[in-house]
Amino acid sequence: MELKKQLKQYQNIIDEELTKYIKKETCPEEKWQQSMEYSLMAGGKRLRPILVLSTYQLFQEDTKIAMPYAVAIEMVHNFSLIHDDLPGIDNDDFRHGKPTNHKQFGESTAILAGDGLLNQGYEVISQTLAKTTNPEEIQRQIRVLGEFSHAVSRMLAGEYVDTEWEGKQISSLELEYIHNNKTAALLKLCVRMGAILAKAPENDIEKLTHYAEKIGLAFQIKDDILSVEGDEKILGKPVGNDEKKQKCTYVSLYGLEEAKGKLNQLTEKAIQELEPYGEKAEFLKQLAIYIQTRNK
Amino acid sequence: MELKKQLKQYQNIIDEELTKYIKKETCPEEKWQQSMEYSLMAGGKRLRPILVLSTYQLFQEDTKIAMPYAVAIEMVHNFSLIHDDLPGIDNDDFRHGKPTNHKQFGESTAILAGDGLLNQGYEVISQTLAKTTNPEEIQRQIRVLGEFSHAVSRMLAGEYVDTEWEGKQISSLELEYIHNNKTAALLKLCVRMGAILAKAPENDIEKLTHYAEKIGLAFQIKDDILSVEGDEKILGKPVGNDEKKQKCTYVSLYGLEEAKGKLNQLTEKAIQELEPYGEKAEFLKQLAIYIQTRNK
Repeated sequence: MELKKQLKQYQNIIDEELTKYIKKETCPEEKWQQSMEYSLMAGGKRLRPILVLSTYQLFQEDTKIAMPYAVAIEMVHNFSLIHDDLPGIDNDDFRHGKPTNHKQFGESTAILAGDGLLNQGYEVISQTLAKTTNPEEIQRQIRVLGEFSHAVSRMLAGEYVDTEWEGKQISSLELEYIHNNKTAALLKLCVRMGAILAKAPENDIEKLTHYAEKIGLAFQIKDDILSVEGDEKILGKPVGNDEKKQKCTYVSLYGLEEAKGKLNQLTEKAIQELEPYGEKAEFLKQLAIYIQTRNK
Repeated sequence: MELKKQLKQYQNIIDEELTKYIKKETCPEEKWQQSMEYSLMAGGKRLRPILVLSTYQLFQEDTKIAMPYAVAIEMVHNFSLIHDDLPGIDNDDFRHGKPTNHKQFGESTAILAGDGLLNQGYEVISQTLAKTTNPEEIQRQIRVLGEFSHAVSRMLAGEYVDTEWEGKQISSLELEYIHNNKTAALLKLCVRMGAILAKAPENDIEKLTHYAEKIGLAFQIKDDILSVEGDEKILGKPVGNDEKKQKCTYVSLYGLEEAKGKLNQLTEKAIQELEPYGEKAEFLKQLAIYIQTRNK
């Protein structure tokens, strides 16, 4: 309950912040802007920005410096969802219980809405850099920008390999390759951005990276489990899609029970990485448990 | 002839530079990387990077500082071509005399190849920023990054409006809105990047911006003219496509003769903007004439 309240609090802050970046001008490209807003405000869990902010708060209180990066990563995440859902890729009709972007606005608008959100992520970062005057702060932000663009490239590589291997029987190593890139790279980035911007010492950045890698993989395993035994109404998208598409998942590879075992093990190990931080890391610990036990 | 030699020289330098950024690893996403290389090295005119470098050389000799930005803009330009050509947008089969990216690699790969090139443009910029130590140099690059992300956003808005208004009868002002965003914004950015990075005084940046706006519009008018009376073999794509798609163009709006008059007038005005620079701007002057007289 406590966690749910905290999550809600973070979500509200992030939603409020995101709305500041939404353009509401009367202009010829109005519908394009609406399509970006539609996906951005469709009710995502905001896990990525929450990771940025809560990691940042392990070291610093005021999240002002981390906030634009939390916003940027959520834009990029939503870009990837819009393009993944396209008829040319996954051809999905529902997301968060609503029609996917191309179902709502048409394919050409959805392609450009994805492009627009990816680019807007960088726009937010460049505006933030332009406003920063402290040279060390600028250096940290430039480092983050480098990691940001690299992680997005990894995410796209993972997405490509996922489509390339669809319907094929792949090994556990190959499945891990997909998800280390497609999902975990971005979650790792979030934690690293939070830590770097908060001036965390290098060994802390490393430790938290290990935490992120584990929850990143756990997140995907849980996704695969929910795709088999989740509740459609709560998930907001059809259950059994992976099977229908003959997607190789942790469940198809290991079976439901072993996948759950792997999920529990990763969660435990992720929590172990937080030990040095004691009470301060309680939220990140609860977040790992949330990823393990969520029903959507 | 002289200009052609100079263009070729620039193109060779740029092609060589671009190949340095092409990843040739044996990895699961190999084909995705090949698809990006395919479009990037498909034989474009390299007009955008040439504008960056030649504007830079109005003020500084060694192009080392401007080169990564020339590379980045060519990546982003190619991203926009790949996505424009997609079945969901323009559904074009040929570009530079070769099958378009999705015809060659399939639609899902082409979507991700476009995404990848847009992101790689930012990756190149962030790597360059990370290597820069001079604080004033960093400030100039941050300014350029801001203009870069804004211009890409304008390009996407223009592309959106272009698809939105396809088949509709639009006014000359509306047509200008499309092209000021879709084409001219990026050409303007190239000239501004070159000037800013070369430490040009603000009034020079402004003057050159006017030059760029004029050649940007001239470029599009010439495109429209070529789409009616160009030679398919030289163009590398079918002629008459605009008409078939009932696209509103400068030719459909004003007729061939008036469009040509407009093109000549814009070229003349662009050249006037270069007067203060005398001999030094000879190449930029020739470039404006090249845009006016090119046959592909």
